[in-house]
Parts: sequence; structure tokens; C-alpha cells
Amino acid sequence: MRTQVAIVGGGPAGLMLGRLLERRGIESVILEAREREYVQQRVRAGVLEQATMDLMDEVGLGARMHREGLVHEGVELRFDGEGHRIPLKDLTGRAITIYGQQEVVKDLIEARLQSGLPLHFEVSDVVVDPAGTVTYTHEGESHTLEADLIAGCDGFHGVCRPAIADVLTVYEREYPFGWMGILAECAPASEELIYAHHERGFALASMRSHQITRMYLQCAPDAEPLPDEEIWDELDRRFGMSVNRGPIFEKGVTPMRSFVVEPMQHGKLFLAGDAAHIVPPTGAKGLNTAMADVALLASSFGDEGALAAYTQRALERVWRVQHFSWWMTSMLHRMSDDPFETQLQRSQLRYTVTSEAQATALAENYVGLPFITA
Amino acid sequence: MRTQVAIVGGGPAGLMLGRLLERRGIESVILEAREREYVQQRVRAGVLEQATMDLMDEVGLGARMHREGLVHEGVELRFDGEGHRIPLKDLTGRAITIYGQQEVVKDLIEARLQSGLPLHFEVSDVVVDPAGTVTYTHEGESHTLEADLIAGCDGFHGVCRPAIADVLTVYEREYPFGWMGILAECAPASEELIYAHHERGFALASMRSHQITRMYLQCAPDAEPLPDEEIWDELDRRFGMSVNRGPIFEKGVTPMRSFVVEPMQHGKLFLAGDAAHIVPPTGAKGLNTAMADVALLASSFGDEGALAAYTQRALERVWRVQHFSWWMTSMLHRMSDDPFETQLQRSQLRYTVTSEAQATALAENYVGLPFITA
Repeated sequence: MRTQVAIVGGGPAGLMLGRLLERRGIESVILEAREREYVQQRVRAGVLEQATMDLMDEVGLGARMHREGLVHEGVELRFDGEGHRIPLKDLTGRAITIYGQQEVVKDLIEARLQSGLPLHFEVSDVVVDPAGTVTYTHEGESHTLEADLIAGCDGFHGVCRPAIADVLTVYEREYPFGWMGILAECAPASEELIYAHHERGFALASMRSHQITRMYLQCAPDAEPLPDEEIWDELDRRFGMSVNRGPIFEKGVTPMRSFVVEPMQHGKLFLAGDAAHIVPPTGAKGLNTAMADVALLASSFGDEGALAAYTQRALERVWRVQHFSWWMTSMLHRMSDDPFETQLQRSQLRYTVTSEAQATALAENYVGLPFITA
Repeated sequence: MRTQVAIVGGGPAGLMLGRLLERRGIESVILEAREREYVQQRVRAGVLEQATMDLMDEVGLGARMHREGLVHEGVELRFDGEGHRIPLKDLTGRAITIYGQQEVVKDLIEARLQSGLPLHFEVSDVVVDPAGTVTYTHEGESHTLEADLIAGCDGFHGVCRPAIADVLTVYEREYPFGWMGILAECAPASEELIYAHHERGFALASMRSHQITRMYLQCAPDAEPLPDEEIWDELDRRFGMSVNRGPIFEKGVTPMRSFVVEPMQHGKLFLAGDAAHIVPPTGAKGLNTAMADVALLASSFGDEGALAAYTQRALERVWRVQHFSWWMTSMLHRMSDDPFETQLQRSQLRYTVTSEAQATALAENYVGLPFITA
């Protein structure tokens, strides 16, 4: 079998790449290890940058996002029991939209199936050869797919990055903490997101909708989720106020890591999204950076020079995002017991909420710098 | 003997405090351990913030500074062999002036002597009692000075801070490097200061005048100064260009440290400047922060409430300056062998020279935030 682009991974990056290629008249096959239901229910990121929203519009899939998404024109930084709003829209002209990654995935899968283009779920035994071949098993049969380009969109634990491990330089940092996350049936703590710094650790109040709240607590990286009551009490403590409570229907602990490989390509294999880089979630950059990668990759297809420059162009933006995510993480978390560091953090926080210049620097990174295309 | 304010230390902080008190009709005695010549020749800081210049004007001593000082409306950040100008004046409306600390000291000493006010050099055996007494030996005789307020302006190695060590919390960070500094007879490398980031380490091109260049190289904290020729070669390498050369007439190595004590007062003793806090020199904040302290202290004298709030008011600004100095240091020096950290630095540098918001944040800190008065 032949196709122009073999896309390994049917998450948001792979699906969006397929959609962008479709709009340019380039054929692709998408291979996904999981079943459709799993992919559509997988709760991950929930904050779309302006450029990601623009991309959804560009591929004709923005309607439900605009109808159901919650547009936020600001975020709150909270410390010493006081909230300070960073007015994103006023400072940058742009905003963010709360729209779950799984909703983006649903929209993209539905469009793919409506177009009748190949998207195979529950694919196994995937072997990627960067010379241009992907072999895999689907519905009990072995297949070999030859492609002009293989897009590695199969995430941090996928098979594509290991296939070219020999040529990669790895940049990495692990943080000595994780996030304990919950989803609960109740109204959010506030209309906008709240990022709280507290001596007991960081806390984030987010949401999925007006009825579903999403909250996080900084915790030990190997912590077990606390009992529900203790989670609510700890949230109240760190926010310095009583947050709305409701039945918790999901909880879990996520480790925090920064990770980048260079180059992001070898032979005909091009990595995009989590397959090539991971950020701590503090800056809400994971999904959006994956979208930036595939927007660049799709626009580079068929242009040898642009493809050769893919790594360099993608990484310049990736490192900006890495730095911002590290900066937000460092400013907001309890990083160490070093009292000098704690005082620096507090000065940085006070400065960020009082200096228009520093608030604008935060805001322009948070709403997202423009996507680059070839 | 009695006075209203006993000032321990005749460096820029103590002398400026004396001058500010004189203008308010408050009497003081200044005690200095060194001889006059030494104090006037001691080469230290050379960058005056706008607010320090304003203070010199306010006390009637700005004439020579305006005549001989070099006003700089920008600084350059240099990396990968390319310079990027941060236009301080355009971004903030303010500028900096190159005017050596020893020139400020000369102007203040001359004014003090002209006013006929007590300024004793070569004082020894100074013992400070925060209850309000200073004993010392001068010209072979022992003296006891009683004061309403004792100002500890005797620097990092002085006697005032140790006198209240029991009540102090110390915040401290040592850096694993120092600065190798030279003074040389030649025109500066550029009309403005150049802060260079290089994989071999940081370098700074500064000046004292149009004829005297001042340069620094990041080095091991315990390094011996290199031979002159090697210093020039290393400067060329780190700046990525040939700098002007001339006879080197001073060289030395300075360690780098961040240090703050809290509170900055106890009983009748109030610390100001280096006696209470040290910054790495990267942000050019040492002298200027000392000036901010004494401006606040002078304006607080005679107001119990203002004096009680001195530590809190001073420290808010001190921590801003500490954070900025740490940030500049971290962005520009070779901090570690961790390649992830190096990539973050480079992204931070690229961002700072391309984002107006981030450049403005640098600029407003560099030209200096306003001094606070009671």
C-alpha cells in the first residue's frame, strides 16, 4: 500500500495533520493504537490558544468550539489570599478558549470519517522505518504502508521517537512534584482560571464547563490521590477561600517533566507534539504546541527546503514554550525549602501583577505566540 | 557627646544620608574606618539609575555628574556574535549615567567638609550598641557618641550588622563563579554597555570615561587574574569581535553573592546598603539600592511610624532588585553544564530582544524603579 503521508497516532496532532493535508489535497492514512471511544474520552488539555482556535476555524471545524467553548479574556494569579487579574485581552488583543482536548478530537474524528478518509483504530505491532515504511496489524491482518513522509504523532510513549533514538539529543528536566487533578460536578470556583501560589504548594482552579470544575494541587510525584474531603480542604487552604464542592468523578496524579529532542526529524520521519517534546502543564502549552508543529509540517509538505528546515523552525517556538512553561512553573510552585528562592518567587509574583510590561510578557506567552508556517 | 544621627561608614550610603539629613536640618556625625584618600579612590560601581541622579540633583550636587557623566539611553545584549540593543529611554522614558562611585563619594565628601559638619576618617575600635550608643577611637582618643538613631552604612564587612546578628534572618545564595575585572587605558568597546552571553561564560564591556575601559569576564570564584594578553583574547572570543586594547592598570577577581537580612533594624540601629544586602553586580544595583535605602531612612527620621515601617518598605524594593539581579545573572552567565538550562537561557535571550514587553520589563528594572520615601 502507498500513501503520501503515513500518520502514526490519532490524537489531536495526528488528526489535525490529516485534516490540514486533506484541505491541501494531500492523501494520508492515520493509524491509532487505541479504540475510538478511548481516544474521544481521554481527558487531557483544556485551554486553546488563539492560534489553535484559528486553526480549527481554518479547517472548517470551529462551529461547535465557538458554541460550547468558554472564552476567557483574563486569568488570575493568587497569593497571600489575594487575587490579581492578568487581563489577557486588554494586554494582547487575544484570548483563550476553554474547550477540552477530547472535544477537539471528537470534531476531528467526525470530520475524517465524514470525508471517508482512512483512519484505523486498534492498530497494533506498529514498526516505523524512517526510510519510509510503516508496518502494522489491523483487524488481524499485517499491512505495509509506504509513504513520502511519516508523521510521528504518537505521543511521549509512542514508537516513532524510539525508531530514531540513535540520532537524537535529549534535553530533559524532571520536577520534584506532580499534580493531583480532580474533575467534579459543580460550578467552577471562578469564571476565569486561578493560578495560586501558597507555601503549601501550587493550586489551579480550572473548568470544563459551567457545571464541571477541574482542579489541581501540587503534590509529591509519587503521591496517591487524597480522599475527596481532604482534597477540598487543601484547595480551600491554598486558594485562601472556600471553593464550590461537588461529587468528584475522576482523580489522578500526573508527574511533571520538561523534555525536548533534537532534531525532530530523520529521513522521512517527522515528529510532532508530545512525541518530540513535553512541557509541565502550568502554561497550558502541550496541545497548542502540538498544533503549532502540525501546522508547520502540513505547510512544509512537498517543499524540500521547508522540510529540511522543519526542526529548526519548530524548535525555536518549542523552546519559547519550554521556557515559558518552566517560568510559570518556577514562579508558582513550591520549588524547594530555600528561603532565598521563596523570596525571589514572591518578588517575581508581586512584580508580575504590578508591572504592565511583565504582565504583558506573561499574557502574550499565555495566549500564545503566532504559529509559523513554511 | 550627643548627636541626632550617628552614621557608621563614610561610603556613598553614609555620606548621602548625612547630606540628606543636613538638608532637613538634622545633625549627624559620620565615622569612617579608612583614610579619605582610600575612600575617594576605591573603584566600585559605575552606573547611576535615574533616581540616584535625581537624588544627587536634589541635594545640590549634580553639577559635576551632569558635566562629566556619560548618559546612556540603551544597553546591548550580545549572543551568537550578534548585538541586540535594548533602547532604555524609548521603552521607559528614563536613562542611566556612567559616573563612578568614587566620583559620587568625592562630591559628597567635599560638600560635607564645606558645610563644616563632622566626618571623621581613620576611626577604629567602633562598637555599636543598638540601644543608641557608638564608642570609637579617633586620633588616639576614645569617644562615646549617643544618638537618637544609628545608621549602619558600613558595608558587608562592617560592624553594625554583627551587632544585631541575634535578631536577623539571613537569606543568601553564592554563585559558583566570580568576575575578573580590568581597568585599561583605551576607548570603550562601544558607546554603550555590552552584556555578552557565550558558552565560555559571561562578559561585560563597560567604561569609566571615553578614555578608560572597564571589562569583566566570568571566571571561577577563586581564579587568579589571567595575564593581560589572555584577558584580551578571551574578551574578543566572548564578544565575538575585536575590542580596543590598552594598558591594563587594575585587575582583580570579585566573588558573586546574593545576601539579604531581615529585619534591617533593631532598637535605634538601622542598616542601609551593603550592610544589609548584597547583589551580584550584573544588574548594576548595589550603589543604587544603597541610595534608595538612605533616601527612605532620611525621610523617615523623626516619624515613629515611618521608622517602624522602614524594614518592610525597604525590603519590598530590595527583593525586587534581588530578583532582577538574579534574573540578569541567570540569563547571561554560564550557570551549569545542564544542556536543558542552556537552551532555556538562549530562548530567554532571544525572547528578551524580540518582545517589546519583555525588553520593557528588563529596561524598567535596569533604569530603576522609583525610590520610596516616608
